[in-house]
Amino acid sequence: MMMQTPLSDLAPGQILARGMARALSDLRYDSLPEMKLRPRLRADLMALGHKGEIWIIECKSSRADFRADKKWQGYLEWCDRYFWAVDSDFPTDLLPEETGLFIADGYGGEMIREAPFHKLAPARRRTITLDFARASARRLQQVCDPGGVGL
Amino acid sequence: MMMQTPLSDLAPGQILARGMARALSDLRYDSLPEMKLRPRLRADLMALGHKGEIWIIECKSSRADFRADKKWQGYLEWCDRYFWAVDSDFPTDLLPEETGLFIADGYGGEMIREAPFHKLAPARRRTITLDFARASARRLQQVCDPGGVGL
Repeated sequence: MMMQTPLSDLAPGQILARGMARALSDLRYDSLPEMKLRPRLRADLMALGHKGEIWIIECKSSRADFRADKKWQGYLEWCDRYFWAVDSDFPTDLLPEETGLFIADGYGGEMIREAPFHKLAPARRRTITLDFARASARRLQQVCDPGGVGL
Repeated sequence: MMMQTPLSDLAPGQILARGMARALSDLRYDSLPEMKLRPRLRADLMALGHKGEIWIIECKSSRADFRADKKWQGYLEWCDRYFWAVDSDFPTDLLPEETGLFIADGYGGEMIREAPFHKLAPARRRTITLDFARASARRLQQVCDPGGVGL
């Protein structure tokens, strides 16, 4: 029913995001790309673990891409752990030390540094989990029933 | 990237489920088909509202389909409200009165009778919402990246 998008049709950040989503699956985390947190703030990937742990992973394809990001600290209040995902050519010395790190490509990724744990407050976790659930189901429906009225 | 499945390729219950998912979208509920609750118990549709309300909707395409269902009361402990979805030819007198009812077809549906409200306990709601979130995201990833390793 569906054709896979070839890697050559994806932007560098999307290639990283695809491989990172696979790496997260290997770690038993289910992830959603482009998760909206509030107006003008979207996470490249948000992931949920089986105990409800919430991770955010920002994918940076280049030094310029990282330098242009003025808002990464804004993500910290929306997750228990915050990671970067970069490719193997990325100058990782640029990245702040108090964050987690994956090295990824279009096919997978590996955790290089665990992220510090800053546990979300229960009410915030409930809100984020519900938003994640609704956004995921809505997008799945849009893909499976693109003719749906009002979607 | 995706072709819609023609209605003629869907089983009667799937046709109802497609229209019901559209009806739920109209009511601002996001739904997931075939949601597994526990071994040997799946909901035809589970839906989440913006305050975290959880509905289950079972789609019955015929009298025989309804009569074969010995386990519908097992769904009640997994939702705040329980509904049937049937087509306009269904003998609705068969349905228990203390349940909600939609009349649906492949294109939409209408609520005929609101379901009684039995509020879930907070811990159960958290578990169901998390399971719904993870299942939705995992299926979306399977559709968007069918070549994903380990999916």
